[in-house]
Amino acid sequence: MIIVLKPDCSEPQLKHILEKITEMGFRHEVSRGVKRTLVGVIGEEDRLRNAPLRAIPGVEDVMSVLKPFKLASREFQEDASVFDLGHGVSVGGGNLILIAGPCAIEGEQVLFEIGRAVKEAGANVLRGGAFKPRTSPYSYQGMGEAGLKILRTVGDELEMPVVTEVMDPRQVELVNRYTDMFQIGARNMQNFNLLSEVGQTNRPVLLKRGMSASVQDLLMSAEYILASGNKQVILCERGIRSFDNSTRNLLDLAAVPNVRGLSHLPIIVDPSHATGRPDLIPSMALASIAAGADGVHIEVHNCPEKAMSDGPQALLPDQYAELVAQMRAIADLLGKTIPAPGDAVTV
Amino acid sequence: MIIVLKPDCSEPQLKHILEKITEMGFRHEVSRGVKRTLVGVIGEEDRLRNAPLRAIPGVEDVMSVLKPFKLASREFQEDASVFDLGHGVSVGGGNLILIAGPCAIEGEQVLFEIGRAVKEAGANVLRGGAFKPRTSPYSYQGMGEAGLKILRTVGDELEMPVVTEVMDPRQVELVNRYTDMFQIGARNMQNFNLLSEVGQTNRPVLLKRGMSASVQDLLMSAEYILASGNKQVILCERGIRSFDNSTRNLLDLAAVPNVRGLSHLPIIVDPSHATGRPDLIPSMALASIAAGADGVHIEVHNCPEKAMSDGPQALLPDQYAELVAQMRAIADLLGKTIPAPGDAVTV
Amino acid sequence: MIIVLKPDCSEPQLKHILEKITEMGFRHEVSRGVKRTLVGVIGEEDRLRNAPLRAIPGVEDVMSVLKPFKLASREFQEDASVFDLGHGVSVGGGNLILIAGPCAIEGEQVLFEIGRAVKEAGANVLRGGAFKPRTSPYSYQGMGEAGLKILRTVGDELEMPVVTEVMDPRQVELVNRYTDMFQIGARNMQNFNLLSEVGQTNRPVLLKRGMSASVQDLLMSAEYILASGNKQVILCERGIRSFDNSTRNLLDLAAVPNVRGLSHLPIIVDPSHATGRPDLIPSMALASIAAGADGVHIEVHNCPEKAMSDGPQALLPDQYAELVAQMRAIADLLGKTIPAPGDAVTV
Amino acid sequence: MIIVLKPDCSEPQLKHILEKITEMGFRHEVSRGVKRTLVGVIGEEDRLRNAPLRAIPGVEDVMSVLKPFKLASREFQEDASVFDLGHGVSVGGGNLILIAGPCAIEGEQVLFEIGRAVKEAGANVLRGGAFKPRTSPYSYQGMGEAGLKILRTVGDELEMPVVTEVMDPRQVELVNRYTDMFQIGARNMQNFNLLSEVGQTNRPVLLKRGMSASVQDLLMSAEYILASGNKQVILCERGIRSFDNSTRNLLDLAAVPNVRGLSHLPIIVDPSHATGRPDLIPSMALASIAAGADGVHIEVHNCPEKAMSDGPQALLPDQYAELVAQMRAIADLLGKTIPAPGDAVTV
Repeated sequence: MIIVLKPDCSEPQLKHILEKITEMGFRHEVSRGVKRTLVGVIGEEDRLRNAPLRAIPGVEDVMSVLKPFKLASREFQEDASVFDLGHGVSVGGGNLILIAGPCAIEGEQVLFEIGRAVKEAGANVLRGGAFKPRTSPYSYQGMGEAGLKILRTVGDELEMPVVTEVMDPRQVELVNRYTDMFQIGARNMQNFNLLSEVGQTNRPVLLKRGMSASVQDLLMSAEYILASGNKQVILCERGIRSFDNSTRNLLDLAAVPNVRGLSHLPIIVDPSHATGRPDLIPSMALASIAAGADGVHIEVHNCPEKAMSDGPQALLPDQYAELVAQMRAIADLLGKTIPAPGDAVTV
Repeated sequence: MIIVLKPDCSEPQLKHILEKITEMGFRHEVSRGVKRTLVGVIGEEDRLRNAPLRAIPGVEDVMSVLKPFKLASREFQEDASVFDLGHGVSVGGGNLILIAGPCAIEGEQVLFEIGRAVKEAGANVLRGGAFKPRTSPYSYQGMGEAGLKILRTVGDELEMPVVTEVMDPRQVELVNRYTDMFQIGARNMQNFNLLSEVGQTNRPVLLKRGMSASVQDLLMSAEYILASGNKQVILCERGIRSFDNSTRNLLDLAAVPNVRGLSHLPIIVDPSHATGRPDLIPSMALASIAAGADGVHIEVHNCPEKAMSDGPQALLPDQYAELVAQMRAIADLLGKTIPAPGDAVTV
Repeated sequence: MIIVLKPDCSEPQLKHILEKITEMGFRHEVSRGVKRTLVGVIGEEDRLRNAPLRAIPGVEDVMSVLKPFKLASREFQEDASVFDLGHGVSVGGGNLILIAGPCAIEGEQVLFEIGRAVKEAGANVLRGGAFKPRTSPYSYQGMGEAGLKILRTVGDELEMPVVTEVMDPRQVELVNRYTDMFQIGARNMQNFNLLSEVGQTNRPVLLKRGMSASVQDLLMSAEYILASGNKQVILCERGIRSFDNSTRNLLDLAAVPNVRGLSHLPIIVDPSHATGRPDLIPSMALASIAAGADGVHIEVHNCPEKAMSDGPQALLPDQYAELVAQMRAIADLLGKTIPAPGDAVTV
Repeated sequence: MIIVLKPDCSEPQLKHILEKITEMGFRHEVSRGVKRTLVGVIGEEDRLRNAPLRAIPGVEDVMSVLKPFKLASREFQEDASVFDLGHGVSVGGGNLILIAGPCAIEGEQVLFEIGRAVKEAGANVLRGGAFKPRTSPYSYQGMGEAGLKILRTVGDELEMPVVTEVMDPRQVELVNRYTDMFQIGARNMQNFNLLSEVGQTNRPVLLKRGMSASVQDLLMSAEYILASGNKQVILCERGIRSFDNSTRNLLDLAAVPNVRGLSHLPIIVDPSHATGRPDLIPSMALASIAAGADGVHIEVHNCPEKAMSDGPQALLPDQYAELVAQMRAIADLLGKTIPAPGDAVTV
């Protein structure tokens, strides 16, 4: 930590600052410049970060030198993390996951049809929501456990790993019985008790970036899960809020290489929620692969005009199949692999 | 709802659109303009809003005419809501609440001293956090139930209503035993299960605006609580994210008259978290009263440099007392009342 | 400047960094911490700021200790600046300006009527646009020089100083012949050649904050004018862009005390452009005075539904008069003065 | 235009609204819903857009059905525009431009060396700034005309078209004598007089998106140039402001397919200014090509630590060459062409 003193910081104030630093158990180093005096504070970073140094009279600013995340950092682990999702599908270190499926689970028949279509197109993880975090209390809230059962059944039939959202610490045990990967939605990225709860399972967690979260905030939320004992966190960029409402959110694709520099954790992209517009999703999916993402998450529905949730942003299975072919070509170019799940489906 | 057709929407597509509308149980009204054809869709607003009209081929845009919140709206209730917080303190309809206290509850002695000071200064609600939602898993997380007990004890001694944050649906019952008002923090504004849970109590809820929440989003979260049966929601503007990091967040003071036009619910302002800077808090507190806020929430600590949390943004008791005197003068000018809690403290 | 070295910065890289620093004519001071080595670079701030230190191999980050503006800073001038606008009206140091008038100058008769009304209400500066920066090339672009002549005539008749926008360095000489104060609009806040050009006059400049400008950016643009020789800059907060489109822009009222701490220059607020909504303007005007602003800029029209520009956001003269009475009450409370322009108008 | 009436709009108010609409020369169509009455207003879009309908008493909201840009729209011109930049290089319709060079022109020798390197790497347009819009008046402001001469000389020697920024309407004639394409910087995107001035030349214009400009704002600024007579506008996405300061700006890559749907104009991407970080530029350049951009603009310097401007964000020639090879592979995959400028350089 570096303390910048106010230009009018008095000698007694400086003395008090140095005493406080010593009292807190840190070392200090004073550097007198032409216009400002600086005090370097040396000690254990976490304790430093939590010390209310800025509240001491005479202090103008406190600048941090280190990043606040540790277990999530590249410095902690040099090599890219690779996680196994089951059915032969892994993510990270050159393995891409293509997650696809409807926004909400609506029934076994429709999920099976969509699932079979996306698997044939090349998807390797099936998604579907049983608990839906909706802005309005009057919107469809999901099928709950019945939906989870359907998801599990369809995933097993298709031999695909499945992912579904968990919204509440009280649901973690239940959801854990049915899913291969938890999804934490953007609105819950800083629901710290939920993070701790999934952090106590040994199930991979797909952590979506909050709409007002910086890349560092995202990594700090990952840190909560890691610090609770679960090392399997996959990050997901899905757009942040901006002033331009021509897209639902603003996809921050630079977060992909940005995270890759800072962390060993895989990061995928969700162009469906980021843009909310089927005409933009394919371009953004291709761009995601080119940018080095470890996967892409896309909503697909076989009849968007009948979907219970987010129909207008779903791709049709044919559009998805065409897109996967293009993504595969770019992945090949970059030497990436898209694992095929299970055996061929014989239905 | 108004559907705007694509310029190249074919007659069969239009026919399909009208059939779908009829099938969903709505009426339609076609209006052919020079460059665009519009279809008015008439029916129950909630069902309309959830229908995936935009997913139907030939549709360019869907424009909503009505606001999505109902119970929170001025149209639902013309008169300003007034809620009783206990100890003679109410909020809304000309009654202002001045909430003050430390960020975190650190012990009975320090809370009592701060509480007595802010009460003498004119505050009428005591705050203090027992469960702290911290960005880092390595930061101080609060005293938990022990803190709640201290808060209750000190509130009773000082005859002041108390408010404290609840972060987890599993804590609602516990916190409900100790507090006079729940606080839902900014990071949990869209933790819908938590909203539903406090919505099932009959305790007032202070709902803070999320960092990426629009005013409408805030009212929709209030709607969750109202729709669950609890009518006592107090909104709190506390700053949203912006590109200018010279303040912690960007205080959106226009939200105060904006909400007042849209809703009957009281709205207060938290300049402490909005700015994060003691040098800006007093001006923003005065501006809040002048803007018509129903109260102000300010963090006060008697020794900021020793605070367990957010010390650098706390006002000293003397600074707070001076500020309350100025706020009172503006409140008087506007014909507002600041209820005094309980009897005089005899300690 | 403080250079933070990469964790893997080699000794030869450090040697090269120190040589470069010496070569640039600066001194250096190395501080080896547990996890990072820092290099303090000491020398003239402006030269330091422009040196591409971050481009040197081995450098992770460069942190600046000082603010980049000088002439605009409180450190350069302790006392608040006060500027004379003519007709007995001055701004700063406790003197408030109430600027009012139509968005665009539309004719002498209408401007005179509006001007007389706002003067009677208590305004002390008359505004009106002759050159209008419109987002669309198909919108009304203003009367040009004919409008300037009308503004001058009406200002003289009413004995009020006048302000009007200048958009182009080529117009500065022309506008200078007619106005008492230049206005630089938000879209031109970083039109540096225009800033330099008005900086070469000795006419006060009302500099509006750009929609994506930080407070520091605003002060840097003021610095351009000051560095060109013109010391009379009045800043204007008028809202920045945000994700919530329920108001036109997001009024950043904390910018008022923020600027006051950083700079000796006066700062006023424009709630008309910030909110774009007549129902929010009065509250935000009162809040501005309470926050310590040196004035308020409000659009007034006697027939908004016939206005050539921005009619929907104009207040009616009666609404304005009522608002001024309230602003005056708060100003009195804070010990501020609203100078009355010229003599009484005898028309 | 659709007018939404207030719920309490009286019949006399409605009558007045309809009279005003007729008076303005428009037709109207009233539609009475359950909760709101709507009035469709039919007439010439531009005139409608400028009419202050929202200022009429009883009006709650006014919703626009059409986009405000015309000449820039896909509806105006179905086919993608293709522009010739000279030396055999064209942009649009499958032809990509790779613009590269230093931020500022610093001298003939250094520009020639960088230019030769980027041409050999595969760049087909040379860039360099002679007039630099700098946030600080104390930063390097560029070589002016001397720089333009150098740029012209080096472009001719290397047989590459050149692009350079113009900041001031008074410079347009001068810059026009030396450059093959004007650049309008982000800070001048809404300098409407400058747009009109370059709109009166017949030289291609590279129009960069402002930091707070929506995609629609960008197209409206293009419309200014088109409406002035110059049909050759190339748009450039270069990042907008966001709350996450880990990158300089936030690259909005979805703007590429977004613009492509709305307009026939080419759009390129500038990852250098968008991210400000050499470690992120290559990924974002590849993503841009994959997203369908018509080119990429990248700053390259052979000695970033000596650059006069923006050294820390420049790629080295070798890094650029490696990147071009990868961009070319993706371009090939998508069936795009990167025109080679002039003949082989024989130096």
